[in-house]
Amino acid sequence: MRYSLTIESLHTTYQQGNLTPTALIDELLAQADSHGKDSAWITRLNREQLTPYLQRLEGESPETLPLYGIPFAIKDNIDLAGIPTTAGSPAYAYTPTEHAFVVQQLIDAGAIPMGKTNLDQFATGLVGERALEVYGIPANAFDPALIPGGSSSGSAVVTATGMVSFALGTDTAGSGRVPACFHNLYGVKPSLGLLSTRGVVPACATLDTISLFSLTADDATKLLAVTAVYDDQCAWSRQHDFAVHGKRYGKAPAAFRFGVPLETQWQTDAAYTQGMHQAIAELEALGGERVELDCSPLLAAARLLYEGPWVAERYHVIRDLMDSNPEAVHPITFQITQGGATPLAVDAFDARYKLAEYKRQADTLISQVDVMLSPTTVTHPSKAEVAAEPIGVNSRLGTWTNFMNLLDYSALAVPVGFSERNLPVGVTLFGPAFADLSLLSLARGLEARLMLPLGATGIAHPPLSALTTPAQDGTLELVVCGAHLEGLPLNHQLTERGGVLTKATHSAPRYKLFALAGGPPKRPAMVRDANGQAIEVEVWRLPIETLGSFLAGIPAPLGLGQVELADGNWKCGFICTAGALNEGGEAEDITEFGSWRAWCAHQSHSTKNSIA
Amino acid sequence: MRYSLTIESLHTTYQQGNLTPTALIDELLAQADSHGKDSAWITRLNREQLTPYLQRLEGESPETLPLYGIPFAIKDNIDLAGIPTTAGSPAYAYTPTEHAFVVQQLIDAGAIPMGKTNLDQFATGLVGERALEVYGIPANAFDPALIPGGSSSGSAVVTATGMVSFALGTDTAGSGRVPACFHNLYGVKPSLGLLSTRGVVPACATLDTISLFSLTADDATKLLAVTAVYDDQCAWSRQHDFAVHGKRYGKAPAAFRFGVPLETQWQTDAAYTQGMHQAIAELEALGGERVELDCSPLLAAARLLYEGPWVAERYHVIRDLMDSNPEAVHPITFQITQGGATPLAVDAFDARYKLAEYKRQADTLISQVDVMLSPTTVTHPSKAEVAAEPIGVNSRLGTWTNFMNLLDYSALAVPVGFSERNLPVGVTLFGPAFADLSLLSLARGLEARLMLPLGATGIAHPPLSALTTPAQDGTLELVVCGAHLEGLPLNHQLTERGGVLTKATHSAPRYKLFALAGGPPKRPAMVRDANGQAIEVEVWRLPIETLGSFLAGIPAPLGLGQVELADGNWKCGFICTAGALNEGGEAEDITEFGSWRAWCAHQSHSTKNSIA
Repeated sequence: MRYSLTIESLHTTYQQGNLTPTALIDELLAQADSHGKDSAWITRLNREQLTPYLQRLEGESPETLPLYGIPFAIKDNIDLAGIPTTAGSPAYAYTPTEHAFVVQQLIDAGAIPMGKTNLDQFATGLVGERALEVYGIPANAFDPALIPGGSSSGSAVVTATGMVSFALGTDTAGSGRVPACFHNLYGVKPSLGLLSTRGVVPACATLDTISLFSLTADDATKLLAVTAVYDDQCAWSRQHDFAVHGKRYGKAPAAFRFGVPLETQWQTDAAYTQGMHQAIAELEALGGERVELDCSPLLAAARLLYEGPWVAERYHVIRDLMDSNPEAVHPITFQITQGGATPLAVDAFDARYKLAEYKRQADTLISQVDVMLSPTTVTHPSKAEVAAEPIGVNSRLGTWTNFMNLLDYSALAVPVGFSERNLPVGVTLFGPAFADLSLLSLARGLEARLMLPLGATGIAHPPLSALTTPAQDGTLELVVCGAHLEGLPLNHQLTERGGVLTKATHSAPRYKLFALAGGPPKRPAMVRDANGQAIEVEVWRLPIETLGSFLAGIPAPLGLGQVELADGNWKCGFICTAGALNEGGEAEDITEFGSWRAWCAHQSHSTKNSIA
Repeated sequence: MRYSLTIESLHTTYQQGNLTPTALIDELLAQADSHGKDSAWITRLNREQLTPYLQRLEGESPETLPLYGIPFAIKDNIDLAGIPTTAGSPAYAYTPTEHAFVVQQLIDAGAIPMGKTNLDQFATGLVGERALEVYGIPANAFDPALIPGGSSSGSAVVTATGMVSFALGTDTAGSGRVPACFHNLYGVKPSLGLLSTRGVVPACATLDTISLFSLTADDATKLLAVTAVYDDQCAWSRQHDFAVHGKRYGKAPAAFRFGVPLETQWQTDAAYTQGMHQAIAELEALGGERVELDCSPLLAAARLLYEGPWVAERYHVIRDLMDSNPEAVHPITFQITQGGATPLAVDAFDARYKLAEYKRQADTLISQVDVMLSPTTVTHPSKAEVAAEPIGVNSRLGTWTNFMNLLDYSALAVPVGFSERNLPVGVTLFGPAFADLSLLSLARGLEARLMLPLGATGIAHPPLSALTTPAQDGTLELVVCGAHLEGLPLNHQLTERGGVLTKATHSAPRYKLFALAGGPPKRPAMVRDANGQAIEVEVWRLPIETLGSFLAGIPAPLGLGQVELADGNWKCGFICTAGALNEGGEAEDITEFGSWRAWCAHQSHSTKNSIA
């Protein structure tokens, strides 16, 4: 590509009228066709298959859809309706009639699925070399003599080589982070249950998560804003407003403490040792204070995964196939998975008890710092090295990834530079569950210092866009959702303070709208709720010194705080005091209207007399 | 006993000077000695063993220790230092050197451990009949021809018969609730992880909790206030401020929705069916709206426990004993537990997946209502019936208790009356994890209507003490912790408004005290924290109309809200805005001083000049 595929770059290009999604897709298709057979893909969609996704963008824009016209790839253990899901096995393949929940969210937000990507069969492996001959092995985009990393091998390759803007992988023990590290990409291992796993072929169902490959931290954040939606049809989805728990995306803190394992525990080769030292120096330059920690409980948990009974979960998935059609399973995968047939339930519980003890120790350990830093992998092996020792090398690659899912941590693989051999090297930031956004904020701080080229495209990193912070120009943007909207009765409170409408948009799809009891006039309350939706809002810019008098006029239970917009940014806006929603009578849930204006219009029709 | 042993009754008696803990204990010992051998106990402490617990009360009072001089019993699978823990097996027994964490909290609060109680061996059973001959079977306190219920049989009997004020049991699948139901007691099955299980012999470690037997809902709440303390040495302890999550003890809501299983699902005999109908009528009389719900997912989860691999957890505990000394294990317990030897790890994961699906369905189901009502047990069998069909009858008893721990619910067995045969009948209130206090609040509403006699003592229910609500007399009690304390610089703000000191006390042991950045003057912030401690506070009574002007003078980040006191009551007091603690600089954690006064004195010594 001649230009970067970051979401912001594409949206700017679209808005400048220099490109349309259709033109982009045609260009990407032509580029992919010119490559011939590419083992990074298991299935690529053709123009005809892509047409419905392009058609649904008509009448929309980057203003209305946060992922308008953004091409992406899907690891082939995640469902895309109408396209086979193989998990790397033609014998296992089925054709789903529905998108996976997360895929549906992305498509609803305007993203365009370009195809399904190759993987270590059944997502079992960190090498990317465990694919059947029919699919081949994705080539590492930096050096084809080296492994691509897995199991989300194809997703990493197609993102790094500019065939898509981002890709979905999965991550059970490192499958999202290791290939991201080997491809100079951001690899988000979200908190368990943050992204629905409905429509995903399980590996270890208790540990699985969909992962994200992106070119920048900003992109990853935008993707989380779209996909981190509670799914009440997914048994593993967790109702947790991750963005509210003290962790928002934005400027990294001016001072923070970061934990680093004792160097004697790293087990890294020269390049990855150097990567750690560089990351430490950069974090210190950002204002971080290094705290060296003995990470034995984390490493013990990692060993538990390999020695323990969790492989029985993999066996649970494919035991029928192993019985009926053993040749359909990659021989290494067969050998590993067979190990899941014999452990006893009592062993499974024993391992769970040990894990609970390690987690308690690990939680206490990492609670001493604001964030943890570790290697992502310990080395980047060649294909020959993996062929010589397929299981041992794979295990070592997971030294610093295996424990994260077991311990219910959030993690982010972050690029930090290139080795002497010009290979990408990365590190991992991690923290407790639902620290996802604070990890991304810190990664953005590193990104701004390093400004590495994007993936393997050689394209320079575009300038980081300004973060939404209190304006430096003496104004402040205010999100309104009710009677302060343009044309509604209280709008004059904004205009008489010199307010100017800067944007008509929506909230993030995570709010419920209520009509409070009492009145007239009726008053709305926007309440953050994992089961909510996008609510119509307006952003008004006001002289900052007028906010005090404005605030003073807001009666309880309303107030001013931070509101998340559709683009993932948080701005000052109306909030409702927790727990006070139903004081003075029951508030009416009017979320289905999606807008205060729409509800008022409905009221006016249905109860015209009483309103008048 | 001639008087009730409720905590409030005893404390009133102590404070009136009519009784001392030593006199009470002597009376209880004499009473127990007069009974001769009582199979409710495995070990009773003698006068000499009790002396240290009495001595430590010297200089204390009900004002300083929330459980001052309150006698209690401990199920014999929970450690009391220096006394054997048998779990019902002399061959298994060991003598711990430390108290179980929860026992330690109770003793620290002034409670007196009277002894260790009998149980279904290894807490395996709901009947109370599975004890070795050496220990005998505790006699049901209402009808010795009927089973006592188990596994916490002895704890129920000694509480119901007035030998103690309360008792600890354990509850893995109903072991705390079934014997409470059979003895006209409140049986608290706390949320998993709310009470530490350190120092408890596991049954199924993933499902176990200590349970509470009490004579009243108020007592149960006081016990939770003392014992619900996060234990960072217990892998299962959960850091969750249960009292803050919208659930406080107090008046039941004036209007609420309660879920009831379809009557076709109850499986209750005539007496327990009648108990359900009575509970429904009482809840409706309290203002509840009944919602009939198809509880199939709950019942399916219950069946999963019996058919599933969780028995492997029990096998994990005693397999060595079963191998080395099979006669040491009760034959029924042996037969059941042996079933845990064979399931495979893949079966354990399969059951865990099914459970996750049931839980998602069950959570969705119960989220439709404010609280759930169910039978506690379905019938009260005779000893003969259990002898004839020891496993089948036991299973049926758990129909409505088995699923609660699996689904991570909080539950409370509540007495509702007596059958035609004059046997106690009860029901269970349950809800999601950490609904413990709202269940107790509702139970208190039922209790106030029913005023049943206490346990099996025949003693009339003492009048319920007034709940702490906004005073009706035009005043309001205000909790202060900083410069408003008597003698400190801002105390005049209270006295000039007509404030009167009503009590010098402490907060619940769940607060941290900070000195905020800025000043002079320095300002304190009390912040609720599971790892906190009791902080010195004063309660002042103020004319309610003066609160507005007082509030207006409080600068951010402080404000007024609700504060929990050592006695478990919540009163209006100083709070600090969430997340704002460190605005304007880092707040200094001064919790170790336990008091603003103490910190100020320390500051004055150490930095006299700068303060002056």
